[in-house]
Amino acid sequence: MGKASTVSPFSPQSLPDVPAIGGVRFATAEAGIRYKGRTDLLLVILDPGTTAAGVLTRSKTRAAPVEWCAKRLKTGSARALVVNSGNANAFTGARGREAVRITAEAAAKAAGCSEDEVFIASTGVIGEPMEAGKFAHLLDKLAHDAASDAWAAAARAIMTTDTFPKLATRRAKIGSADVVLNGFCKGAGMIQPDMATMLCFVFTDAAIAPAALQGLIARSVDRTFNCLTVDGDTSTSDTLLAFATGTAEGCPRIADAADPRLAAFAGALHDLLRELAILVAKDGEGLTKFVTIEVEGAENDRAARKIGLAIGNSPLVKTAIAGEDPNWGRIVMAVGKAGEAADRDKLAIWLGDILVAENGERAQSYEEDVAAHYMKGAEIRLRVDVGIGNGRATVWTCDLTHGYIDINAAYRS
Amino acid sequence: MGKASTVSPFSPQSLPDVPAIGGVRFATAEAGIRYKGRTDLLLVILDPGTTAAGVLTRSKTRAAPVEWCAKRLKTGSARALVVNSGNANAFTGARGREAVRITAEAAAKAAGCSEDEVFIASTGVIGEPMEAGKFAHLLDKLAHDAASDAWAAAARAIMTTDTFPKLATRRAKIGSADVVLNGFCKGAGMIQPDMATMLCFVFTDAAIAPAALQGLIARSVDRTFNCLTVDGDTSTSDTLLAFATGTAEGCPRIADAADPRLAAFAGALHDLLRELAILVAKDGEGLTKFVTIEVEGAENDRAARKIGLAIGNSPLVKTAIAGEDPNWGRIVMAVGKAGEAADRDKLAIWLGDILVAENGERAQSYEEDVAAHYMKGAEIRLRVDVGIGNGRATVWTCDLTHGYIDINAAYRS
Repeated sequence: MGKASTVSPFSPQSLPDVPAIGGVRFATAEAGIRYKGRTDLLLVILDPGTTAAGVLTRSKTRAAPVEWCAKRLKTGSARALVVNSGNANAFTGARGREAVRITAEAAAKAAGCSEDEVFIASTGVIGEPMEAGKFAHLLDKLAHDAASDAWAAAARAIMTTDTFPKLATRRAKIGSADVVLNGFCKGAGMIQPDMATMLCFVFTDAAIAPAALQGLIARSVDRTFNCLTVDGDTSTSDTLLAFATGTAEGCPRIADAADPRLAAFAGALHDLLRELAILVAKDGEGLTKFVTIEVEGAENDRAARKIGLAIGNSPLVKTAIAGEDPNWGRIVMAVGKAGEAADRDKLAIWLGDILVAENGERAQSYEEDVAAHYMKGAEIRLRVDVGIGNGRATVWTCDLTHGYIDINAAYRS
Repeated sequence: MGKASTVSPFSPQSLPDVPAIGGVRFATAEAGIRYKGRTDLLLVILDPGTTAAGVLTRSKTRAAPVEWCAKRLKTGSARALVVNSGNANAFTGARGREAVRITAEAAAKAAGCSEDEVFIASTGVIGEPMEAGKFAHLLDKLAHDAASDAWAAAARAIMTTDTFPKLATRRAKIGSADVVLNGFCKGAGMIQPDMATMLCFVFTDAAIAPAALQGLIARSVDRTFNCLTVDGDTSTSDTLLAFATGTAEGCPRIADAADPRLAAFAGALHDLLRELAILVAKDGEGLTKFVTIEVEGAENDRAARKIGLAIGNSPLVKTAIAGEDPNWGRIVMAVGKAGEAADRDKLAIWLGDILVAENGERAQSYEEDVAAHYMKGAEIRLRVDVGIGNGRATVWTCDLTHGYIDINAAYRS
């Protein structure tokens, strides 16, 4: 992991104003796990009664904390969340599992709960032995200091090669109750989530049973974080966790994801996850352009996403965008390699609103200098109709630049 | 397609001495299809009785010449091959098909054969209308000038971003007959063949029926060109064609790929294709390191190849190699994302002969400075045992560098 020298051009001007959520408190510390002079440890304290749901990486080499969370999600009761950056505690064998156990034990003591109510996530270098001793002793003091307004500090403590913290908020009604949803996430490289991005945490004061919360996030993740790619690489540690404290005044406890009273909440949650996923693409390592890929006319939505990811992962498409070259032939290539049904002779391609190709060849109206001018923009939209059916998907990514090479070809130390 | 500024450090010192093959003659020309001041058109004249076999891209957006070849391979009789560089004649609609027809007509007239005995391959920019008129009129003179010793010129005429021509030769016995196999190919970017690389042509004076020749190449391509990646992008034009003239003195005509008399020939063919595939990896756009990935212990050979390609396509593995960083955690990540069975707690990884990880964690004997020294070499070998079964595969690739970005982010014009 090299140093990101500059801040992404898509970094928001300011962080959103995030309201407190009853039953959620934070504290952060500089534990010196890998980085110096910045926070790298986050403890979240959750009130009794908080439910939890989550989606985790499908990597075959998933990290020890991911396996820990998978077991805890079976009961879905949460009182504490510990997150560290700088070391992913992945591929660390028995010592890695022991580090997780020590962390859970210390967090349970600090929060006054059972170890089974502690969730843990780690992000950073893979394969480096994790020394829980570096931070487990800090958790007591963090629990004591935890405050309900430390959202920005929390979002900062989990960053690795991120150049800006990623934080979002929404409001919704459940019945007559006003509920809040806040979330933050991290991720810039090793990003093609296969259930969720590197790390994402969502909190709400709604009262929702674990199974219902699980149903809601699984549905949204498929059309948000799973439609995101920076480099096609999937982390060993992808973790999205959602926590519902149930502290919103008058909020009925909802047991079923299909309950019609959840409609507005489900919409707000989807919106929140979409915003966070886009923020990750906007902090893609070394990016100069943010790219939205809209695929339509595919056999089904799954096929559309696969085609969108094939375009979004193509080094040749991504370098053409970096070079501001409307080299749309490379989009044809990427559609072809995706392996999903596509009708070459009905394929249509737009750069922004400019039709560049239709009916299997360059459009009559196409003017290269108009397309070249469009490519100079910072936000690029590619639209592809593959001419088969009604499947559609939107995928978010970024260009592939010298900056990506600089960041990732730098020696770790 | 930008300009490759320097020659690959792995360019062979000299081209091999390639013997003539009875019944095969070449001529090349500067047709000015896209490039100036270099040859971009190749005509191969084949004697009557030549058989043909081939493997073509599985892209869903394959080019017009690929569709033409697919139809001609059904009969498997060949008298002429026309190859141009500079324009792939891909995604060019009805005009593209018409350009192929005009080319076939002109080549048939020049070679004195049926259009059905003409094979055509095009490589270069996608989506640009192809003007067959630029070169069809040259074919008559090329047929007249064709000579049996122009192998190097032929290999040069089909280059695009290649920095060196790729040519190889083998000899074998069929019964008591001595036969020769020569081949050449091109490719540097858009390389993850899905049946064959961009363009590869093999010629032999052996007498082999089309179905037998097809059986032999299909078997070898799976373990040679299909184990090759530069950037994970699959061309619209991948074409491998093999031609057998049957002119070797005393060579019996073989009808069946399983005929035991073909054993030595099959071995030589496999060797030839392997050498040509490795030459493509050694000319990967912008490379500074040639990388061999050996996967063992997979569920089966197919799974091993998929894991090898996941490692070979990972931008994070490829940039770490460019940075001479023994960041083997990224290999763990790539194994995990491949989606094939792998036992995280039995996984072992070597850099060259240096054991870096075993039993799911860093090896006790591992010393980072020894591994870092190994990474400074020009040829890097990664070995992975995924701890499941007996499947194995070898994949060839290269690193991902600023040079790749320079070449592919350059505007086409």
